[in-house]
Amino acid sequence: MLQPGDTIGILGGGQLGRMMALAASKIGLKTHIYCPDPNSPAFDVTAFHTCADYEDEAALEAFAKSVKRVTYEFENIPAPTVEFLKSRLPVLPGDNVLRTSQDRLIEKTFFNDIGIPTAGYHDVASQQDLEAGVKALGLPALLKTRRFGYDGKGQVFLKSEEDVRTALDIIGNQPAILEAFVPFEREISVIAARNEQGQIVSYDIAENVHQNQILHTTTVPAAISDSIAAEARAIGEKVADKLNYVGVLAVELFLLPEGHDQRLVANEMAPRVHNSGHWTESACLVSQFEQHIRAVAGWPLGTTKRHSNCVMTNLIGDDIHAQQSHLSEPSTAFHSYGKSETRDGRKMGHINVISPIDAA
Amino acid sequence: MLQPGDTIGILGGGQLGRMMALAASKIGLKTHIYCPDPNSPAFDVTAFHTCADYEDEAALEAFAKSVKRVTYEFENIPAPTVEFLKSRLPVLPGDNVLRTSQDRLIEKTFFNDIGIPTAGYHDVASQQDLEAGVKALGLPALLKTRRFGYDGKGQVFLKSEEDVRTALDIIGNQPAILEAFVPFEREISVIAARNEQGQIVSYDIAENVHQNQILHTTTVPAAISDSIAAEARAIGEKVADKLNYVGVLAVELFLLPEGHDQRLVANEMAPRVHNSGHWTESACLVSQFEQHIRAVAGWPLGTTKRHSNCVMTNLIGDDIHAQQSHLSEPSTAFHSYGKSETRDGRKMGHINVISPIDAA
Repeated sequence: MLQPGDTIGILGGGQLGRMMALAASKIGLKTHIYCPDPNSPAFDVTAFHTCADYEDEAALEAFAKSVKRVTYEFENIPAPTVEFLKSRLPVLPGDNVLRTSQDRLIEKTFFNDIGIPTAGYHDVASQQDLEAGVKALGLPALLKTRRFGYDGKGQVFLKSEEDVRTALDIIGNQPAILEAFVPFEREISVIAARNEQGQIVSYDIAENVHQNQILHTTTVPAAISDSIAAEARAIGEKVADKLNYVGVLAVELFLLPEGHDQRLVANEMAPRVHNSGHWTESACLVSQFEQHIRAVAGWPLGTTKRHSNCVMTNLIGDDIHAQQSHLSEPSTAFHSYGKSETRDGRKMGHINVISPIDAA
Repeated sequence: MLQPGDTIGILGGGQLGRMMALAASKIGLKTHIYCPDPNSPAFDVTAFHTCADYEDEAALEAFAKSVKRVTYEFENIPAPTVEFLKSRLPVLPGDNVLRTSQDRLIEKTFFNDIGIPTAGYHDVASQQDLEAGVKALGLPALLKTRRFGYDGKGQVFLKSEEDVRTALDIIGNQPAILEAFVPFEREISVIAARNEQGQIVSYDIAENVHQNQILHTTTVPAAISDSIAAEARAIGEKVADKLNYVGVLAVELFLLPEGHDQRLVANEMAPRVHNSGHWTESACLVSQFEQHIRAVAGWPLGTTKRHSNCVMTNLIGDDIHAQQSHLSEPSTAFHSYGKSETRDGRKMGHINVISPIDAA
């Protein structure tokens, strides 16, 4: 368990690392950001930072000596970096989590193994595998690289035999997974947290809408029944439990239309704070970022109760230029990530618009 | 008007500077903390800091060059420091504000001049003045140094002729002001903000309870009528308007019992974010800290609407050691200032406990 004033190391200096660092400051902990990008927005809000490659062992050694525990803002940390650090101090969530979530095939298998349904899938190492997968799952279907995909990168939507012929080339002939297309009614996500004492909490279920394969809005509460919401929370908490997880995690779920035997199927998990939990910053007393830091510190988790309804909207690329108008809108919280350069498709900030919870 | 990514300089590195810096980060601005104390808690949360005396002109010069505007967390900044900086860049709130609020006599006179009632007071430069004051105002009364008082420091409560004989010695024979004792029903405060465009906002009125002359709790809403609350907000907004104020200010008011002609009298103002506004962090989307930074940046002020009721309790000295229990309490936000040393009477953190606003 950390003491007040102790320092947590964070791998990654983007907006998630930045918001974790801000949350740590609020509860009296320091952070040390490690990131190879000299323009990391998280560098601006912490007592300590290291700008070095993830393979730089001298820098990693000094980093490890300066902090009590290490966490991260992204799951694609090179395995040798994690190995190096974990031989010196706790890296949380643990590497069992990274092994599971860095590979879509292992992740889907894990979900099924613990009784959480997923869409059908097929391991694809060759064109022959792909064709067998298409035969088993039908079209349309999604071909995704097993590793390093995010925001729609590294995936192809297959509608025709022609698509099947070209798909593996498009994703660079990497090891892949073919996933059955799920005609989902809506996408929801659950944000759960677990600390090393085994305390597990989850937030109310939110509903996500994507644009151009990037999250556009998250709305809480999701327009789903109480029983579906309870089931979704139970899925998040089960994943945290089964992985002996420490920190915050997100599980994206598809809600299938009525009539399906199984209404909820897991799409993917993120072993970290997640864009679909940004609403917690404005509608709860303890945000996902603070919850993650508490878990990593070995401190008690906090309330996940929601005092308001909320719609989170990402500000992508040029959206950030409307900030003066967002600052003036009623019932609106504005959050900028302090990124020096605006680029198309880059997450620059978000707004949370809250409204009262209707009386029952 | 500042641009996203610009840097605001903050004089003072305590908890108020720290919370302003955190708020600036949230809206994409950087801060540079200037403070002579090497253990300043605000140093841990910013991109830049300078540890130097307020009289160090070389350090001030470099500081001025590194920031676009300067603000402060405390009103007792040495006048030459402000002079030096304001010849180089905007210092906000302006030095007219500091001249008014650094001296209780000037402050009280200002309140009366703009039509805001205060308790009776008397300028005290000598024992003779003090005795004339006691004759005019009666006993009990309060003798306070005109300058540099806070948290009950530099003041004596006069109940007897004996107290009148010793009081000036006790406060070191400094220039003083004698204030009539006000038998108030409760103490309330108003937090208001104004930006350079002249936009003025204020928060709902909160009620304060002190222990050992240090703020103990702030409760919002205050248990006062709507018309008194409106009058209190109007006082805060009037002060902001008349001073051409830029930033957040607090005015502490005494509510006199029913039967008095004038129910509200101003006690004192603070030209800065204020302990009695810490509740805004948990019960509003835009906290007093963010509001201050927006005003200093020349950006639009944000919503002051309250989504919840709130009780803020200061954690003073050893109170902070109960943090593990505070972290677990329902409906509770915990905030630690990250101070390395716990001392008696030292403000170490606060908790905000929220509850739903009752339907009307």
